[in-house]
Amino acid sequence: MHDTEKANRKKQQGKPRKRKARFKVTFQPFETSIEIPSGQTLLDAVRKANLPLKTTCGGKGTCGDCLVQIMSGFYKKKITAALPDQLASRGYTLACQTEIADNLIVQLPQFKELSIKSVADSKFLDEQRDNISGVYEIDPIIKKIELALPSPTLDDNYSDLKRLERTLRKNIGASTINCEYSALKKLAYTVREEQGNISVVLGRFGEETTIIDVLPTSKEKKVYGIACDIGTSTVALHLVDLKSGKIAGTASSLNQQIKCGEDIISRINYAQKPGRLKELHELIILTVNNLIEKASRAAKIADSDIYYGSFSGNTTMIHLFLNLEPRYIREEPYVPTFNRVPLVLSRNLNLKMNLEGRIHCSPAVGSYVGGDITAGLLCTPILKDPKKISLFIDAGTNGELVVGNKEWLMTCACSAGPAFEGSGIKCGVPAVEGAIERLKFKANADWEYKIIEGTKPRGLCGSGLVDLLAELFIYGYIDRHGKFNEAKAKKRLVESEDGRGFLILEGSKSFWGKDIIITEKDISNLIRTKGAVFSATSLLLKNVGLRFDEIDSYYIAGGFGQNLNIENAIRIGLLPDLDRNRFHYLGNTSLLGACLILLSDKNKKLVNDISEKMTYIELNTEPSYMNEYTGALFLPHTDMKLFPSVNRIFTG
Amino acid sequence: MHDTEKANRKKQQGKPRKRKARFKVTFQPFETSIEIPSGQTLLDAVRKANLPLKTTCGGKGTCGDCLVQIMSGFYKKKITAALPDQLASRGYTLACQTEIADNLIVQLPQFKELSIKSVADSKFLDEQRDNISGVYEIDPIIKKIELALPSPTLDDNYSDLKRLERTLRKNIGASTINCEYSALKKLAYTVREEQGNISVVLGRFGEETTIIDVLPTSKEKKVYGIACDIGTSTVALHLVDLKSGKIAGTASSLNQQIKCGEDIISRINYAQKPGRLKELHELIILTVNNLIEKASRAAKIADSDIYYGSFSGNTTMIHLFLNLEPRYIREEPYVPTFNRVPLVLSRNLNLKMNLEGRIHCSPAVGSYVGGDITAGLLCTPILKDPKKISLFIDAGTNGELVVGNKEWLMTCACSAGPAFEGSGIKCGVPAVEGAIERLKFKANADWEYKIIEGTKPRGLCGSGLVDLLAELFIYGYIDRHGKFNEAKAKKRLVESEDGRGFLILEGSKSFWGKDIIITEKDISNLIRTKGAVFSATSLLLKNVGLRFDEIDSYYIAGGFGQNLNIENAIRIGLLPDLDRNRFHYLGNTSLLGACLILLSDKNKKLVNDISEKMTYIELNTEPSYMNEYTGALFLPHTDMKLFPSVNRIFTG
Repeated sequence: MHDTEKANRKKQQGKPRKRKARFKVTFQPFETSIEIPSGQTLLDAVRKANLPLKTTCGGKGTCGDCLVQIMSGFYKKKITAALPDQLASRGYTLACQTEIADNLIVQLPQFKELSIKSVADSKFLDEQRDNISGVYEIDPIIKKIELALPSPTLDDNYSDLKRLERTLRKNIGASTINCEYSALKKLAYTVREEQGNISVVLGRFGEETTIIDVLPTSKEKKVYGIACDIGTSTVALHLVDLKSGKIAGTASSLNQQIKCGEDIISRINYAQKPGRLKELHELIILTVNNLIEKASRAAKIADSDIYYGSFSGNTTMIHLFLNLEPRYIREEPYVPTFNRVPLVLSRNLNLKMNLEGRIHCSPAVGSYVGGDITAGLLCTPILKDPKKISLFIDAGTNGELVVGNKEWLMTCACSAGPAFEGSGIKCGVPAVEGAIERLKFKANADWEYKIIEGTKPRGLCGSGLVDLLAELFIYGYIDRHGKFNEAKAKKRLVESEDGRGFLILEGSKSFWGKDIIITEKDISNLIRTKGAVFSATSLLLKNVGLRFDEIDSYYIAGGFGQNLNIENAIRIGLLPDLDRNRFHYLGNTSLLGACLILLSDKNKKLVNDISEKMTYIELNTEPSYMNEYTGALFLPHTDMKLFPSVNRIFTG
Repeated sequence: MHDTEKANRKKQQGKPRKRKARFKVTFQPFETSIEIPSGQTLLDAVRKANLPLKTTCGGKGTCGDCLVQIMSGFYKKKITAALPDQLASRGYTLACQTEIADNLIVQLPQFKELSIKSVADSKFLDEQRDNISGVYEIDPIIKKIELALPSPTLDDNYSDLKRLERTLRKNIGASTINCEYSALKKLAYTVREEQGNISVVLGRFGEETTIIDVLPTSKEKKVYGIACDIGTSTVALHLVDLKSGKIAGTASSLNQQIKCGEDIISRINYAQKPGRLKELHELIILTVNNLIEKASRAAKIADSDIYYGSFSGNTTMIHLFLNLEPRYIREEPYVPTFNRVPLVLSRNLNLKMNLEGRIHCSPAVGSYVGGDITAGLLCTPILKDPKKISLFIDAGTNGELVVGNKEWLMTCACSAGPAFEGSGIKCGVPAVEGAIERLKFKANADWEYKIIEGTKPRGLCGSGLVDLLAELFIYGYIDRHGKFNEAKAKKRLVESEDGRGFLILEGSKSFWGKDIIITEKDISNLIRTKGAVFSATSLLLKNVGLRFDEIDSYYIAGGFGQNLNIENAIRIGLLPDLDRNRFHYLGNTSLLGACLILLSDKNKKLVNDISEKMTYIELNTEPSYMNEYTGALFLPHTDMKLFPSVNRIFTG
């Protein structure tokens, strides 16, 4: 008998529980609870709760996919080879092999919050400050300032508000001053308690200044904002000190809406039944609130210290975030409710922030090019030069491309799929701790790899998958269609629940204790994704009458991870075969752009200009679309002349 | 046995109830409920609930003051002479003589909502439009406009919001357009459901236009506002159609805070214990909400059709209305939290209005001169002429005076007491239906009187009390000190629980079936009130170096009723003895001013100017204050030379 199990039984003996008819099972991170009769399995409970849990073997206990972690409560489990000891000892169990014997709190590790690493940090903005279209300055619209109000006397007994306004005008010279009702309620007491030494949190909204909060200066509270990228697959957030502009905390996780569909079309469809829009809205609010909580806890600040949120995401994600009907986005003539939305109060969305907090959402261009792109463009130098032509590629689950310069901007969208964000690929993970981000064949047919945060590998993030695909292709383990070369790959081919796969790493070396493999289905998935991006790029340029080599610079964004090997991205045909110096990988520009907007209102004006100025081209209605796409479903492309450097590897 | 009682017993027999240990008693209009053991009296319940109910005899069943009306439930009552048959037959009973035998809903008639009549109607504004300082125009900041949005096409597929903004700009040419989140949520659906024929409710806030609501044009909803005067004793409200400016409904009642103290100082004191500020706030919100409900019901409109509220009241009342600490108003140096408050959202106050409704409060001058005065001045011509000097007297529970012209304004306040609003006087009632508003001795020593709404008299309102006092004095029933002239009054003097009183009307003629009498205590109360107003007037004029006859016009406001007999007001020494043409009775100018502000933003600027411009004089610290006041505690005054016309009546 297993140690953990022994301990488990011992606990049961030591603390005998009267057997109840029904138990409550709570699933993290969804906070979903369900009542279920004792004796049923955890997999039954997961299914009854309508939660997403992959089970390739269908509950036979052989695939090991339905891994869950029990956080509290007693349970009975069957011993199975698919559950490695190293996991069992950490409280993991297979849902299909576990009988419920108590009220349980269960973590679904597929959805656990993980720290997603990307180059989206302030270092990038600092280094690139002269090279980006946005303005990098610390001048947010919400600020705290300290005031010393003179005590009232019989000769100077104006009202508290008037004395506050008078002192404020001396300090900041504002013309129209408003005051939030909640701030007014605290005013009289705070002024007297602190002998006039109060701090006010001010919002600069248009021409008007609004007093949002009144605080005792003695408490030395800082004022924070959050910048957040709401991706279809992953959500990433920075907690920012609004005075210094420093990032005080970072958090990211999968978008919990994933259980309702992987791409925007399936989410919109999901939202059509009664109550479902609310569910999607609550899932994204839950996702964001979990991230806020995580970042706030790490920075040791209160929710109420956060007064401003800058959000960017595609049009559908922002509609769902704001609880707005997304249906008309996908019905002809594809009209969203809004492109540019006024500031929304955080309390309207139940966000874990100050109740008077304001939310800005980056403006969209239309139904299929959202605020993630307008914000992202701030992080590129595209808008700086009237002559140099650049191309911006955001290869997220929904891929968007922009070509142009200071004078003009054209854009299009394509459904790339979430493969490069680590979703829908068996060995794929987001760019989280434990993700393999770089990968290379060593001389002895083994791998040389680099892991984010250096623990045992959990899987491969986008940049790792690009490397893997390129290496498999260049070393001849797969052919141009992405099929295994039997002769060459034989030694590393293994059978798995998902079909035949190529063994990347043995179970003993992996975090989960399970082999990390890639199947032909996964490879085909990756090829479709890179094909969608490449064919969209090609078609967009044809539409504007430009060749690949007429583009001076290519800026690549997306959830690939901290680094993207440009050479390998070209080898698989994701990027065109040009001088490598033309390519610049920027990381999560949507998040970086949201940061820029958070810190300076000038960027708000810039993104509004961008959203007004950009022309959208609908690719799906182009007759040549299918031709372009089919041609790109090869490694690197059906037309090898387009990739001379890759051709040379094979032809010498 | 009495008929009603028989019916009551019959019901009890027909529907026997199992005797419970405890019953729930709910008191209207306070909506206060209490649990009480069976067998106790209603008076016990009233006391336990800490509600105000006058009981002069202390519960012996003799004074008849503790009259209540049972709205539902069974009860046992003792027969007593103090309960006239005509009241018993309408469900009235004496609280001290009634045993609780069921769950009861009980109306306290002293606090029942009644329709307070005053000259505060739009007729006044219409007639006086060229004679008032305010602007009478129908141009409220909140308006509904109808739009026809063209259907989106593939060539014109801008977002719903953008297409709305575009159409709006064509219609109203607004520059910055905001949109409330709640309106945004309804937009997509309403636009499609109504084929673009939507109406938007717009708010013009400063330089910006905000879309507050989106409605189907087909529903033909009107947009309403409320104007409300929050007096210390009475609250009055007009429901106004914001398009036509017409008054769609009117309601008024006693301020339910009265149970916590009659004047502002006692309310401020009451608020000092924990939870009490909240209680006072909730009582005034309850009062206002009851009035909104009554007016809305009569006009057959929904709460959500009301988008704008214009409130005026003294500084303390508005602090309590906004749930703001009033304490510092009465502590040196008498600093209120605000004089001028930005617009507040109706939902912050839980008002029965549209959730996006906006609330404007008229600006105060200081702790003791509030928004009722700045709004009230709009209804006078004081600010029109740079030469003519006028005096404005608002004789409410808190009396305020303003002297000046277009160039300068001086103001002061005095604690007049609620006597002229019908509070604190046994026979006094607000200017409600059934109030005697005019009174005159007939030849045969009986009275000639006029009742508001012509039913049987309930008591005397302010104007009736002024008439009564003057007639009693002129005909010699009372002397200059307000004491009964035994010889003359003998026949009409009766003993009552409150002491000896002068019989005004026999019980058979009154609504309550009880004698209407006035006691020496009541007379003394009225004299103190008129004395406070007169001495404040005198002292204010001395402060600015003017004599009574140097004032061109006197404008009198207050809760006296529809009319005030100026001759009698002079005879009792409330007003100075000058040419009667100099006096103008205006009624409830605070409510009228709130209406003007509701209908035109120009008035908001005017009241702000007034509040900035006015100079406050503190009378209480004047050494001559007590002299002036004591001199005014005679009829009409200790110095008869000041009232030559009154002197002539007695000296011929």
